[in-house]
Amino acid sequence: MDTIMKQKVAPKETTLISREELIKQYLEVRQHTETLCKPLEIEDFAVQPSSEVSPPKWHLAHTTWFFEEMILVKYEPSYTRFNAQYSELFNSYYKAAGKHWLQSDRGYLSRPTISEIFKYRDHVDNRLLSFLNNSNELSQIHILVETGLHHEKQHQELLLMDIKYILGANPLLPSYELEAHSKNKKEKETWIPFKEGIYEVGHTGNSFSYDNEGPRHKTYIHSFSICENTVTNKAYLNFIESGGYTKPELWLSQGWDWLNNNDISKPLYWTKEGHRWVEYTLSGLQDLDLNQAVTHISYFEADAYANWTGQRLPTEEETEIFLESNSEKNKAGEVWTWTKSHYSAYPGFKKFEGLLYNGNFMCNQFVLKGGCSVSPKGHYRHTYRNFYQAHQRWMFSGIRLAKDKK
Amino acid sequence: MDTIMKQKVAPKETTLISREELIKQYLEVRQHTETLCKPLEIEDFAVQPSSEVSPPKWHLAHTTWFFEEMILVKYEPSYTRFNAQYSELFNSYYKAAGKHWLQSDRGYLSRPTISEIFKYRDHVDNRLLSFLNNSNELSQIHILVETGLHHEKQHQELLLMDIKYILGANPLLPSYELEAHSKNKKEKETWIPFKEGIYEVGHTGNSFSYDNEGPRHKTYIHSFSICENTVTNKAYLNFIESGGYTKPELWLSQGWDWLNNNDISKPLYWTKEGHRWVEYTLSGLQDLDLNQAVTHISYFEADAYANWTGQRLPTEEETEIFLESNSEKNKAGEVWTWTKSHYSAYPGFKKFEGLLYNGNFMCNQFVLKGGCSVSPKGHYRHTYRNFYQAHQRWMFSGIRLAKDKK
Amino acid sequence: MDTIMKQKVAPKETTLISREELIKQYLEVRQHTETLCKPLEIEDFAVQPSSEVSPPKWHLAHTTWFFEEMILVKYEPSYTRFNAQYSELFNSYYKAAGKHWLQSDRGYLSRPTISEIFKYRDHVDNRLLSFLNNSNELSQIHILVETGLHHEKQHQELLLMDIKYILGANPLLPSYELEAHSKNKKEKETWIPFKEGIYEVGHTGNSFSYDNEGPRHKTYIHSFSICENTVTNKAYLNFIESGGYTKPELWLSQGWDWLNNNDISKPLYWTKEGHRWVEYTLSGLQDLDLNQAVTHISYFEADAYANWTGQRLPTEEETEIFLESNSEKNKAGEVWTWTKSHYSAYPGFKKFEGLLYNGNFMCNQFVLKGGCSVSPKGHYRHTYRNFYQAHQRWMFSGIRLAKDKK
Amino acid sequence: MDTIMKQKVAPKETTLISREELIKQYLEVRQHTETLCKPLEIEDFAVQPSSEVSPPKWHLAHTTWFFEEMILVKYEPSYTRFNAQYSELFNSYYKAAGKHWLQSDRGYLSRPTISEIFKYRDHVDNRLLSFLNNSNELSQIHILVETGLHHEKQHQELLLMDIKYILGANPLLPSYELEAHSKNKKEKETWIPFKEGIYEVGHTGNSFSYDNEGPRHKTYIHSFSICENTVTNKAYLNFIESGGYTKPELWLSQGWDWLNNNDISKPLYWTKEGHRWVEYTLSGLQDLDLNQAVTHISYFEADAYANWTGQRLPTEEETEIFLESNSEKNKAGEVWTWTKSHYSAYPGFKKFEGLLYNGNFMCNQFVLKGGCSVSPKGHYRHTYRNFYQAHQRWMFSGIRLAKDKK
Repeated sequence: MDTIMKQKVAPKETTLISREELIKQYLEVRQHTETLCKPLEIEDFAVQPSSEVSPPKWHLAHTTWFFEEMILVKYEPSYTRFNAQYSELFNSYYKAAGKHWLQSDRGYLSRPTISEIFKYRDHVDNRLLSFLNNSNELSQIHILVETGLHHEKQHQELLLMDIKYILGANPLLPSYELEAHSKNKKEKETWIPFKEGIYEVGHTGNSFSYDNEGPRHKTYIHSFSICENTVTNKAYLNFIESGGYTKPELWLSQGWDWLNNNDISKPLYWTKEGHRWVEYTLSGLQDLDLNQAVTHISYFEADAYANWTGQRLPTEEETEIFLESNSEKNKAGEVWTWTKSHYSAYPGFKKFEGLLYNGNFMCNQFVLKGGCSVSPKGHYRHTYRNFYQAHQRWMFSGIRLAKDKK
Repeated sequence: MDTIMKQKVAPKETTLISREELIKQYLEVRQHTETLCKPLEIEDFAVQPSSEVSPPKWHLAHTTWFFEEMILVKYEPSYTRFNAQYSELFNSYYKAAGKHWLQSDRGYLSRPTISEIFKYRDHVDNRLLSFLNNSNELSQIHILVETGLHHEKQHQELLLMDIKYILGANPLLPSYELEAHSKNKKEKETWIPFKEGIYEVGHTGNSFSYDNEGPRHKTYIHSFSICENTVTNKAYLNFIESGGYTKPELWLSQGWDWLNNNDISKPLYWTKEGHRWVEYTLSGLQDLDLNQAVTHISYFEADAYANWTGQRLPTEEETEIFLESNSEKNKAGEVWTWTKSHYSAYPGFKKFEGLLYNGNFMCNQFVLKGGCSVSPKGHYRHTYRNFYQAHQRWMFSGIRLAKDKK
Repeated sequence: MDTIMKQKVAPKETTLISREELIKQYLEVRQHTETLCKPLEIEDFAVQPSSEVSPPKWHLAHTTWFFEEMILVKYEPSYTRFNAQYSELFNSYYKAAGKHWLQSDRGYLSRPTISEIFKYRDHVDNRLLSFLNNSNELSQIHILVETGLHHEKQHQELLLMDIKYILGANPLLPSYELEAHSKNKKEKETWIPFKEGIYEVGHTGNSFSYDNEGPRHKTYIHSFSICENTVTNKAYLNFIESGGYTKPELWLSQGWDWLNNNDISKPLYWTKEGHRWVEYTLSGLQDLDLNQAVTHISYFEADAYANWTGQRLPTEEETEIFLESNSEKNKAGEVWTWTKSHYSAYPGFKKFEGLLYNGNFMCNQFVLKGGCSVSPKGHYRHTYRNFYQAHQRWMFSGIRLAKDKK
Repeated sequence: MDTIMKQKVAPKETTLISREELIKQYLEVRQHTETLCKPLEIEDFAVQPSSEVSPPKWHLAHTTWFFEEMILVKYEPSYTRFNAQYSELFNSYYKAAGKHWLQSDRGYLSRPTISEIFKYRDHVDNRLLSFLNNSNELSQIHILVETGLHHEKQHQELLLMDIKYILGANPLLPSYELEAHSKNKKEKETWIPFKEGIYEVGHTGNSFSYDNEGPRHKTYIHSFSICENTVTNKAYLNFIESGGYTKPELWLSQGWDWLNNNDISKPLYWTKEGHRWVEYTLSGLQDLDLNQAVTHISYFEADAYANWTGQRLPTEEETEIFLESNSEKNKAGEVWTWTKSHYSAYPGFKKFEGLLYNGNFMCNQFVLKGGCSVSPKGHYRHTYRNFYQAHQRWMFSGIRLAKDKK
């Protein structure tokens, strides 16, 4: 699943930043996407080893397509498309007309080459910057550009998830980055209690957010405690070694089927070599770091783990309340943590007109909160609602536990 | 999906009825199941035209298996099983050991014959009644028998859903019952408003309920209105004729895929013969009754219909509050109405120990409320949480609309 | 696969038998089909545990349909169909119009019941006998009736194959017949040599045959020897125990995939219980009889076995020449033996006009020769060309070996 | 399907060419493979838009792997592999151990890059040439090198088939070569009669051949005529326009299913734009050249076409006899023509020991004869037996008709 399909904004009242600031941000974000691709070989841009992954060159083209199609084509009268076929090839939206190239077949396309796509990016950047510099009536454009930049930041995270999958699925196990991050943490487990009552959740204010983050609304919360720390590889390894993957009573019925049909017995990138556990990382194969947060696990695994501990996953509201209250020493930004909440509309949610609203995905997905190590800087908010299907795990997903108050 | 997998009770404090009353209910419920099968031919008991449907003889054996395996085998020392292989053949639970016969393959079994299964029922009934009459310490047994009877009532509804599917999938379109029910209703649409505030939902008291109906708990509700009437065939036909099935913007993304992959353009049992709409019913093929509640539609269709009207589906809490407040002229019992709530645990829900708890199914299902025309008498409660997957529609499912207060 | 699809006759010059003889044969063949069904329970007639198997009631109706549709409807002006829908339901031919009921879905139909199908048989029998008795111009009708009887004999064999599969797939493993046939044979292996030269194969003369058996034609045969005896369970067990199913070098590439994808490691009806091999037979589960011919094996298995012995399967021409030369102490009628010949047209073969010719199946099938223990009496000819796909094995298929002359 | 799996040679008596000649041929063949790749972009080497197609870089590595694994590793004691993992990655043979990378997943691999694979080729070429120059006992090596070169020639043809598919599946429809070949032929249809009798077919002599081409043997042929000309686009277009794809009576039963399941109504690379037929060629999209041989059609289509004409496809023996007799003005080399012969062993065929023999594929394939426009020079022989499955059509396959003598 590609996030622009998921996180399309409904324009709303946001405070406008200045033209100069907008151009500065545009240049930074667009440049950063390309910087992320520096370590790649040309072939790495083209392949698609799983239907939910996209080839990196598709991300580079699709984010550009957004600026071309949503802004230049609509608002810049003298603009002609770089290549008329790109509007179908790099469109992830319109399922309707059956005209867009199937997501699962993106890896079938050797052309346009990545070299051609970089030319496409240059072309659109030049025209857009020129348009921004010369346009008088900016407010609507402004919001669209800002949306396009948020969209591209989402794809920066997707890009890293997909690159990791592409390289990790290759038996040669190439590294993406030279140096491994040593984040050897060792912490005492801390539980934070919350009292029963009415709380508020959801986005408010004039800063940017996606439509599904609002409206801010009241919700009744029962007393609970939530763990400040996310679950570590060490703790998860205990779950495995105690036979967690062989006990159907711990698993959702669909989860047990998934596990058996796909021979799942460990997180996505773990392997056991003899008696030694190793994990594929963006720095290549590494010894499993027991103090790191466990990551690349499905909702099914997160839920089974929670059952095994006798605790439970938190709801999305509980997680948001915790994240907001804990902003100072915030553990957000490590792994996206699964919540036990299916992704649904907030009370009073208004669907955006047209095809492109978030509501289209409010079925059979679970909400994740908190951001992760590869989320772009400044992109994350506590109200942010990420969502994936229960079996997916190529994103940087982990576990935070909660429990009812005794 | 078979409901005993879904609705297993966790024993709790319930008020015990007397031994005589229990025996009376046992005889009535067991007899009613067989009465429902009277119109069937022997071959009707054996076939399975869809993997989610079960052959009627399976229901007759499985409900019996419950009393044999959960009560006689465990509590009656002198009991030996009617046939040792039945404990695997008619068990719907234990996915674990890979020993039970696959649900999708139930229609492969010609043996045991229905005649043999009626003998099995007789055998278990005789032994159970004798056990009930002679046992001194009844309280635990008592609860299990009551659970078994609720379980069998659920299967009475499933039996009718499955019989309808079996006969309706046959090109000869045989009738199940001779006389069609003329429920020609014509009503004014009435909307009931509810004020914002804290409400309580969920089961309480000592009467029987499933574990997932509790605990009763507070929930914050935003002001809304809900329609007393369910959506009629006439209204749904307008949706079809206005092109509802051809407009992707009305549909969930998964719903749009489902519709296209399965060539869906109308409710399950509708057919258009020339310019005339007909519907397969338990009384055979009938002209579409425009004033009846639309039924046999999926969540995807219910949601698209609601979008088309500019309104929305209610949440399960909203529906329960309405049903409770409206008990006098209650519209429940016509069709199960889809809610926009994914099926999840209530705050404070405790999972039953072992494999058989409802929590196993809390993933990718939506809650339906209200009961339907083939629900057994006395089986329904406002707190009852039925649940199905978004694409399923062989149950008697319909639509009730809600809207936010302006 | 249903044989009438495979073995439709092209009318040709055959010697006519008398009206009385024809009526006598008609009564015998029709009666024998029903006699074969005597041991069945009603439910046994309706189920379909594999898409290549048909429910017995389908065979009973389809063979009747042939006489109704090909003779009564076409030649008896006053005839009206027993039930107009049967012409689609029990037609195995016309793939064209998409109107016939899918073969794989035959087990979804509980109606018409077997009781109704017996009425259908009676109705057609009465009308056909009356027509035969009163018709003056019999020659064309005569040939069609004879074809219909050969067709029904084929279905008698299919019926037994399918009954065995239906009962053998049931975990209760019911018997079809009370008494097991003890055919305890113990024989010396005898090889028969044949000299190089021109031989003739194929059907000739005025007796009945299918179109694909002719024309009789010359073929050049290289010197070879063929084994009079078919391969025994004992010999095949040696193959298994020597690791035959684990050595890819013995297997066709497609066979090796088939074996791995379906977890095949023994003939269809064999099971190992502890150290003891048992085989499901029409008389229920039996100890494996080591002196019997191995049966229910696929072409893949037959070919791998032949490779393991260092010999080979014979061609269909070699097998036919052997069968003809060996008529006196003929080993035919035990198991159908696989030949290494793909099923193709003989030189000079003329396709029958219309849809119903054998040539439609001349792709990816192998020829089997010789008849089997459940082939109806008098139905078998040395020129008979049975054919199945390489992975199929629910028919009574076995192995005869050949070798090139040194 | 990869041809080395199909066409592995069994070493036999062949006349040795000189060391100098062998080295010259080695350089030429190896160079030619790389020349064929000149027009490709880097991304073109990596993608796999169909499971039966291989990425070009796989061909380049696999042909190199043959020389490394079959010669250097076995006969050159001081040799160490360029990369130990390549022996699994580029091995198409050993299905046994489940160790080789799945054919259908070759397009998932971005690494090794094509640049790395060219280094691999250089490395192996250098070591092999040095080994050939210095080795004394050449005869066994010599045969293996010659086999490797024939193997690589086969892959040169596969490379062009796969490149055409990769570029033709891309909506941008890039060209492989700049100039279209105008082979505007216009010929009178000529039929060549052959008399009944004993003929000989199969390879003989000391020149190179694959094992499946022998032994040369006698076969009895009935009188027939065969068409010197292959079927043209014009003739095939008549078939389409007369409704050929809508008449089930023309098609094999499996063919009719294939056609319907895959929405087939024209040859692989044809498209109708308005009223104009165009065809994707290696020079990009072109108007359909009516005088060219029809190509990229399946056996199912060839057989249906032949049925439509009232004629038939020739057997492989008939085709070989014709090709041999007609060597002077030989029409071979235009398209591979389908024969009605399933691919089977010749009388007296001896299977090569080990996994790698042709016999592994003698199931459900049809023989094609005659070579095609992209077959490498000098690679073709009249005895050559190419083979594909009945539905495959990405190779350059066409039709030659035959008929029985009246």
